[in-house]
Amino acid sequence: MKVGIIGAGRIGKVHAKNISMFVPALEIKTIADPFMNAETEAFAKQYGIPNTTKDANEILNDPEIEAVLICSSTDTHSKYIIEAAHAGKHIFCEKPIDYDLKKVHEAIDAAKQAGVKLQIGFCRRFDHNHRAVYDLVRAGKVGKVNIIKISSRDPEPPPVSYVKVSGGIFYDMMIHDFDMARFLAGSEVTEVHAVGSVLVDPAIGEAGDVDTALVTLKFASGAIGVIDNSRKAVYGYDQRVEVFGSEGCAQNENDIPHTAVLSTADGTTYGTAYQVMWDRYTGAFVSEMQAFADAVANDKETPVTGEDGLYPVLMAAAATKSLQEGRPVKISEVE
Amino acid sequence: MKVGIIGAGRIGKVHAKNISMFVPALEIKTIADPFMNAETEAFAKQYGIPNTTKDANEILNDPEIEAVLICSSTDTHSKYIIEAAHAGKHIFCEKPIDYDLKKVHEAIDAAKQAGVKLQIGFCRRFDHNHRAVYDLVRAGKVGKVNIIKISSRDPEPPPVSYVKVSGGIFYDMMIHDFDMARFLAGSEVTEVHAVGSVLVDPAIGEAGDVDTALVTLKFASGAIGVIDNSRKAVYGYDQRVEVFGSEGCAQNENDIPHTAVLSTADGTTYGTAYQVMWDRYTGAFVSEMQAFADAVANDKETPVTGEDGLYPVLMAAAATKSLQEGRPVKISEVE
Amino acid sequence: MKVGIIGAGRIGKVHAKNISMFVPALEIKTIADPFMNAETEAFAKQYGIPNTTKDANEILNDPEIEAVLICSSTDTHSKYIIEAAHAGKHIFCEKPIDYDLKKVHEAIDAAKQAGVKLQIGFCRRFDHNHRAVYDLVRAGKVGKVNIIKISSRDPEPPPVSYVKVSGGIFYDMMIHDFDMARFLAGSEVTEVHAVGSVLVDPAIGEAGDVDTALVTLKFASGAIGVIDNSRKAVYGYDQRVEVFGSEGCAQNENDIPHTAVLSTADGTTYGTAYQVMWDRYTGAFVSEMQAFADAVANDKETPVTGEDGLYPVLMAAAATKSLQEGRPVKISEVE
Amino acid sequence: MKVGIIGAGRIGKVHAKNISMFVPALEIKTIADPFMNAETEAFAKQYGIPNTTKDANEILNDPEIEAVLICSSTDTHSKYIIEAAHAGKHIFCEKPIDYDLKKVHEAIDAAKQAGVKLQIGFCRRFDHNHRAVYDLVRAGKVGKVNIIKISSRDPEPPPVSYVKVSGGIFYDMMIHDFDMARFLAGSEVTEVHAVGSVLVDPAIGEAGDVDTALVTLKFASGAIGVIDNSRKAVYGYDQRVEVFGSEGCAQNENDIPHTAVLSTADGTTYGTAYQVMWDRYTGAFVSEMQAFADAVANDKETPVTGEDGLYPVLMAAAATKSLQEGRPVKISEVE
Repeated sequence: MKVGIIGAGRIGKVHAKNISMFVPALEIKTIADPFMNAETEAFAKQYGIPNTTKDANEILNDPEIEAVLICSSTDTHSKYIIEAAHAGKHIFCEKPIDYDLKKVHEAIDAAKQAGVKLQIGFCRRFDHNHRAVYDLVRAGKVGKVNIIKISSRDPEPPPVSYVKVSGGIFYDMMIHDFDMARFLAGSEVTEVHAVGSVLVDPAIGEAGDVDTALVTLKFASGAIGVIDNSRKAVYGYDQRVEVFGSEGCAQNENDIPHTAVLSTADGTTYGTAYQVMWDRYTGAFVSEMQAFADAVANDKETPVTGEDGLYPVLMAAAATKSLQEGRPVKISEVE
Repeated sequence: MKVGIIGAGRIGKVHAKNISMFVPALEIKTIADPFMNAETEAFAKQYGIPNTTKDANEILNDPEIEAVLICSSTDTHSKYIIEAAHAGKHIFCEKPIDYDLKKVHEAIDAAKQAGVKLQIGFCRRFDHNHRAVYDLVRAGKVGKVNIIKISSRDPEPPPVSYVKVSGGIFYDMMIHDFDMARFLAGSEVTEVHAVGSVLVDPAIGEAGDVDTALVTLKFASGAIGVIDNSRKAVYGYDQRVEVFGSEGCAQNENDIPHTAVLSTADGTTYGTAYQVMWDRYTGAFVSEMQAFADAVANDKETPVTGEDGLYPVLMAAAATKSLQEGRPVKISEVE
Repeated sequence: MKVGIIGAGRIGKVHAKNISMFVPALEIKTIADPFMNAETEAFAKQYGIPNTTKDANEILNDPEIEAVLICSSTDTHSKYIIEAAHAGKHIFCEKPIDYDLKKVHEAIDAAKQAGVKLQIGFCRRFDHNHRAVYDLVRAGKVGKVNIIKISSRDPEPPPVSYVKVSGGIFYDMMIHDFDMARFLAGSEVTEVHAVGSVLVDPAIGEAGDVDTALVTLKFASGAIGVIDNSRKAVYGYDQRVEVFGSEGCAQNENDIPHTAVLSTADGTTYGTAYQVMWDRYTGAFVSEMQAFADAVANDKETPVTGEDGLYPVLMAAAATKSLQEGRPVKISEVE
Repeated sequence: MKVGIIGAGRIGKVHAKNISMFVPALEIKTIADPFMNAETEAFAKQYGIPNTTKDANEILNDPEIEAVLICSSTDTHSKYIIEAAHAGKHIFCEKPIDYDLKKVHEAIDAAKQAGVKLQIGFCRRFDHNHRAVYDLVRAGKVGKVNIIKISSRDPEPPPVSYVKVSGGIFYDMMIHDFDMARFLAGSEVTEVHAVGSVLVDPAIGEAGDVDTALVTLKFASGAIGVIDNSRKAVYGYDQRVEVFGSEGCAQNENDIPHTAVLSTADGTTYGTAYQVMWDRYTGAFVSEMQAFADAVANDKETPVTGEDGLYPVLMAAAATKSLQEGRPVKISEVE
């Protein structure tokens, strides 16, 4: 099956590389980027992608291409989803679909009406550690889910310029954890309450955001949960989930690159955590693309649907409102 | 130094035994309990306590006795603190001082005016694992404290009859964690927000309480925190704390009785957690009593002051109000 | 039951203290030591031991005393065992019984003929971690035992003066591991092969011993095993066992004083190991004395019999011979 | 740089796939196998290998091909090394070079005289966990190396037919650990002593081999070591190394596929170990090929030289002799 990639930035290239190396069911015919340049053309050549273009329409209008990967800037996601849907192409779109809920709905509806697959790029669902916890929970090993806890901390804050346009910590960072919370709970969040502080970098505060945040979740099932985020963990990428239930507790330990342990007079030391996201989630990016190929090839539901793209945005909207107003906010208030 | 123990229930006996075995600086002269019986008299004999009585006044009026341990029912704590203070005796009092803030203040004031030591029985501060995290934090190993997370789960819920009179999960269970949060943060909590559910036993709900709760904390320092409690963890006593800061993260793993590990075709299994509180916190009870003896003998401030007894009650009051009203509550609202 | 303690050195005092604190079934009437002094008399008083004496015969001839603890120097062990046996007293004797196999046999025989209990002080059998592995093995969790591995490393070498008289590393240090190997395997060792080096302190080599040793074991069952010893582990007391069998592998992790973990930019660090044997094996000393009291009171076989005292000495003799002659040595060669 | 692969069995295909996916510096021109078939031709096509042939000479005689990978049966290794060396091609050869020491020497000499690179496929040196221990040791973190311990256990024994021709457990299994011991120690082994038993499958014993073995090592540096092997660990692939030295101890924990942990009333359980070698050492196979490409491209010494291929064979020969004769055997006896 031939695919096209719209957007040749960092994430577009990761998907291109992974498809060419690990997803034999997909064949990239064209990669499009308005800033197409020699470096990207060389990249395309190296990974056997025959066409490069500045014009996404070359993909959308190509009858040979059955699926598109939308890896362009967020503000173009919903537009390309709609156009791809109209062109009858299956769609993998990076998260978030959009911050504007109306656009999110329009995009999801377009895909539905066209009867094409739509998968959203919440890659962490495919991480081997998070997945292993999910599998334990779904296999009933913890019984009924009572409490969910998610820690998610980045090694370094993004540039303040990014924070200004990203929608803030709930939209650009915790959105992954909002998705993970729903994924693990198997139940929708009905209310959130956010607290946050500027403890890492005052410039983030001046940009109107917090850099340390903690959001309480109420689920429809009665379960409760909490997510904590920090923009800066000096020890590296810290990503842990915990699901406590009536029959037990499943959690994962933070991932580290190797199992070597050193005991000296100073104590017993394990290796440092991953310092970059691409190293930490290498396998997850591959797995989500294999899952997309599988969903399209075998006409299955995609493992991360359009609705799965919608709900975390609702949660981010509610968390933002909660932080601003200093009170719990129901999801129904922002729907 | 001679001491008297008021209250010969479970905790009174634990202290009596620990003093006789591990605190040579203290000598128990008298143990008083309105329900004094043959079994307690035999206990006293076994541990070398010369006097038993039904009347606490025999302790309070005994000029030889320099310090009293108040291990009676909660409703009598403040009364005995005041009387012991008037009698010029140093005081160790089990937590909580009282649920009535006015009484708490009166008790603290009485001790202050009398110039006697007052230590409150928040034993977890003396647990080897929590203490080790505290020591790392105080030694600056995590830098400035940004996030505090505390998990505290009991193996079994208490009888519903107890829940009805205890003041509920925030007063009888999370109060330990409220104390721990302040202890670890080195900063006062200014606001709490509580969510809770009845997920373990409907009878607890019928008694007007929740059995699963999660409380968000804002500290004066800007740090944020969260405590989760469950009345029932099938795998046993689960007590973990985590302090995340600008330079690192200190946490403890749940305590288990031994380090043996079994690898079979089913995976690699560690031993089960402690099933009873007395096993889990054996050493902590000894250490707190040694610390009390040290504070009195060497005229130091006690490591858990009257104020340390007050604040967790304020936090419990605020959490209760927050749960009832579905909104964040400032500590100043309940003060 | 009244007991007497012969020998008031470090280990004698540990047992005295533990009995007085944790073994209510035993009552120490007399403690004897040829170097009895004011400090030991004060110790006796503190722990409620009424009699102190320079003459062990006061214990051996006291009809009220039913059991003796032999904590004197090794060269007097077999003599006191024989005398105590003749006096009809039950016997707890510190390891080793003797280095002279003839004396060991005479002592064991004397206890047998007198029909008194004899327990040897291999305290590690009572350690909570080693015991937990043993329990897993005996419960059949690892199936048939195929391989046994024991690591045992001390924080600091003993004085060279001690090495000169102790019989060397196999007699004074690895003897604990020889006992542990038999204990875990449930099968006798038939042959050993020792290699060793002087890598810690040349003075140990000059004294005719090695400070780093590794002994291969063949068991009657067909299982094989290995023990490694080092006189100096800078990170503290390192004591681990591993039992690999047809159905799995049971092992214990080295014991550390607390579970706190620190993650910083330098990695994730656990606490240091124990630095002193008394801290590491605190509970084991208590448990072995409780087991002795139980064996005597309830007329059970002691958990570490005279034969259990004999075999490790045979293994040490064979290991010494193996190291000297550079070849495997059968236990039957030294028997 | 163009390469040819001689031998299209399992390991040949692993290298072919890894080169095509992860080693852009190498380009596979031809793959040769006497049993070339449609399935292998399809494989070659999938991974962009233009030529397939039954005749290894097509590779050896191709002037465009600069390096060959020898992945054929062991009995042909030395022959192809010599022929490739004569043809001036750099060589990567699977281990072992041969069991016949004369042939091993001839092969190594041929490569030396031709001035071509020779790398032997001891892939475990490239494993992330073993490598991390090695890096700690080489960085001096454990000080002077005193003790080396290696555990290596397979999930399932190989077919007895294989055991009959492989040379036995020391040649087909422990040879990896012999290499690892030298690699970690940074010192040559001078003497070995082997013990072994048939505990897994009597048919292995009937074939003249043992299935459970333990080999003691003496190193030229004075360090001592031990390797244990079992043909069957029900919990999966168990591969651990430990290096104990004057300043500390570096070890790795067994590798497991994820970090998820489940706590239930039965204890706390980690995931099972890897069940197949290819999953366990995925990354190591990639890394060794990248290292080979790097050595050739940048004219560096290969990280596993011909001598590194020789010594483990000497150790296996000595271990075999030791087991047969029941005595320690010096490497110089088999050289």
